[in-house]
Amino acid sequence: MTTLLQSFIQVHPDSHFPIQNLPYGVFKPQPTSSPRPGVAIGDFVLDLSEIAFAGLFNGPLLNNSDCFHQPNLNKFVSLGRPAWKEARATLQKLLSSTEPILRDNEVLRQKSLVPLSQVELLLPVVVGDYTDFFSSLHHTKNCGLIFRGPQTPVLDNWYHLPVAYHGRASSVVISGTDIIRPRGQAHPAGSSSPYFGPSLKLDFELEMATIVGPGNELGKPVDINDAEDHIFGLVLLNDWSARDIQAWEYIPLGPFLGKNFATTISPWIVTLDALEPFACEAPKQDPPPLPYLAEKVSKNYDLSLEVHIKPVDHKDSTVVTRSNLKHLYWTLTQQLAHHTINGCNLRPGDLLGTGTISGPEPESRGCLLELTWNGQNSLNGLDRKFLEDGDEVVLTGFCKGNGYTVGFGTCSGKIAPPAP
Amino acid sequence: MTTLLQSFIQVHPDSHFPIQNLPYGVFKPQPTSSPRPGVAIGDFVLDLSEIAFAGLFNGPLLNNSDCFHQPNLNKFVSLGRPAWKEARATLQKLLSSTEPILRDNEVLRQKSLVPLSQVELLLPVVVGDYTDFFSSLHHTKNCGLIFRGPQTPVLDNWYHLPVAYHGRASSVVISGTDIIRPRGQAHPAGSSSPYFGPSLKLDFELEMATIVGPGNELGKPVDINDAEDHIFGLVLLNDWSARDIQAWEYIPLGPFLGKNFATTISPWIVTLDALEPFACEAPKQDPPPLPYLAEKVSKNYDLSLEVHIKPVDHKDSTVVTRSNLKHLYWTLTQQLAHHTINGCNLRPGDLLGTGTISGPEPESRGCLLELTWNGQNSLNGLDRKFLEDGDEVVLTGFCKGNGYTVGFGTCSGKIAPPAP
Ligand SMILES: [Ca+2]
Ligand SMILES: [Ca+2]
Ligand SMILES: [Mg+2]
Ligand SMILES: [Mg+2]
Ligand code: NI
Repeated sequence: MTTLLQSFIQVHPDSHFPIQNLPYGVFKPQPTSSPRPGVAIGDFVLDLSEIAFAGLFNGPLLNNSDCFHQPNLNKFVSLGRPAWKEARATLQKLLSSTEPILRDNEVLRQKSLVPLSQVELLLPVVVGDYTDFFSSLHHTKNCGLIFRGPQTPVLDNWYHLPVAYHGRASSVVISGTDIIRPRGQAHPAGSSSPYFGPSLKLDFELEMATIVGPGNELGKPVDINDAEDHIFGLVLLNDWSARDIQAWEYIPLGPFLGKNFATTISPWIVTLDALEPFACEAPKQDPPPLPYLAEKVSKNYDLSLEVHIKPVDHKDSTVVTRSNLKHLYWTLTQQLAHHTINGCNLRPGDLLGTGTISGPEPESRGCLLELTWNGQNSLNGLDRKFLEDGDEVVLTGFCKGNGYTVGFGTCSGKIAPPAP
Repeated sequence: MTTLLQSFIQVHPDSHFPIQNLPYGVFKPQPTSSPRPGVAIGDFVLDLSEIAFAGLFNGPLLNNSDCFHQPNLNKFVSLGRPAWKEARATLQKLLSSTEPILRDNEVLRQKSLVPLSQVELLLPVVVGDYTDFFSSLHHTKNCGLIFRGPQTPVLDNWYHLPVAYHGRASSVVISGTDIIRPRGQAHPAGSSSPYFGPSLKLDFELEMATIVGPGNELGKPVDINDAEDHIFGLVLLNDWSARDIQAWEYIPLGPFLGKNFATTISPWIVTLDALEPFACEAPKQDPPPLPYLAEKVSKNYDLSLEVHIKPVDHKDSTVVTRSNLKHLYWTLTQQLAHHTINGCNLRPGDLLGTGTISGPEPESRGCLLELTWNGQNSLNGLDRKFLEDGDEVVLTGFCKGNGYTVGFGTCSGKIAPPAP
């Protein structure tokens, strides 16, 4: 048995941020500081701009790079897996309990380790384009049953390609941002004309998202078996949805104002390298995918997901769903390869949402639409059909290792009343 | 009768770029130069960075601005209409036949006036998000007839809101860029499973697009009667579409790979100020729009549009459609106000496509899908059902004034064979 790698920084076994994780984010140590990259370790953020200034990124690829002197991670993620592996090796060594360089240098520790509780976390990347997939069979089936009935809950194209649509990049916000209840048109069944008002069916969607690393040139698709090299890591994503607005607008061109008022992501990007110990086989696909989507290794991750809701007048939050990334039918690499097969170009920092991640059991459904069956029932344990003003929705996700946890922290947002 | 404003630069009456127009673009005078803003005048580009260096933007708003020392127009368009009006007044004076400052300064003329034939034109703005509307009733009706038949060619929601979807910002390209035929999945009616290959139904879509000026904050909608102040100007847009890919993928989340392989825009942004003499009343809307879409002045523009196709082995191009912007049912301001009503934030430089601009007559249909009725007929005057490799598609648009033309130049692209 190998000994577990330990940091000189105390990390509680339940912490999401042990030395095995080292997720990347962007933060301001003081309100007046400029944004800079960091990694989370226990209750601290390690300031990568300080580590770079100190000359401690001394591997061949990052030696002379200014990637950690940027206000976002786009340049770092564009460098590709060899640079990511070099950074990870450097940081795991630097933070390990047996390495004196940082451990025994109080001045550098003071400068570079900032308590998480005192920093402001920002969007880790500039998102050029945001795409949202629809890759959970359970979610797809439930939506089909709710909206079209039991004849064809899953449409014929769904089994042949990872269905997706383009979302809005401008309204991607960081965890903790209030979500103003959107107003818009709705047209309830049976009424003769649409009305205008605040959404009455505001929902969350439990998702994760790929942060794209190196992009591809316009006209040059990414081969399915190279797709993993274009994925830097994952974040939690809440695709806030106004079901009443969406239902009225979405035929025939898809969701628009029902979605684009806000999309929240978690601040920490967990790398595929940190998730690799939790890889598992993806579900068997039947019918088999066309050759451009057939991959040598078909990989998911055993990654537990939870959604908590805390109403404004409650002391505690309630867990409303427990799901797992492993339930996805279409893999992250299939999503990415499909996205580029027509020549569409991805850019570093692009965000590819998985779609709502519902599991097979009723308690593992990933949104209120499914959990309350479009408002027919109340939520288990909470008097809710859709979200109310003041509700705080918190997504979390983590992988349980032997004696440690690789987690994403939280992705949260509170519903604020609509504009008057 | 007032005398027509004239420039000291010779401008042919059919030129799209008289002193009444002055459209904005971004160009490189030499292959090795840095990109800079310019305006088109006759057969020349006026280099605005040189005019700014010479201190000739001496109005109160642009006096100390670095907006013309940027590699794109995003900063300038963010400044708003008062700054745009100041720039227009400065440039019309500077270029007029009676003003000696530039006319009689040979050194400055040499530095700042570059022949259009020798410059490289670039994307005029960095596009943060690209949205495509569906605002022509004729186009909507034709698509409905082709895909759903005569029962409900226009869906109920269409008359109540400007339907739209999010497009792809990364693949917006400048006029003149080759368009590689996309590959993807299609599923012809009657076949049991989908196949993979180059698109067999490659199409153009004749559109125009708003270039957004000042944006709005997340959560703060733009009032319909203020919407015009958020529109800097218009470009021509070709929303290339692979009809076979689109038809198989688009239910239920809308077009994705059938569209996002490329969208071409024209290099010159014609300002609303230059188009104002050609404003006309928009079509009456029945049913009347909800109050948030009801505007005091409902304005379109009498702007002629044409599409030419030049097959690779032909000497000349053939006009395949003649349409007009005035046919749009939903106005540009209604599109913009609707986009923000849920709190969605627009940013300077965002691109809002109108959707295919078809007129009422068969000869004014804005895409091959309509012109050949989904490949049932050949194109008038050209042996084509959809685009073939080597075809060059050229969009053009112009307003005819009394003795002058305010035009957009061209928006072109040639079909290149698919990746092997
Ligand atoms: Ca979603
Ligand atoms: Ca279109
Ligand atoms: Mg969203
Ligand atoms: Mg397009
Ligand atoms: Ni109606």
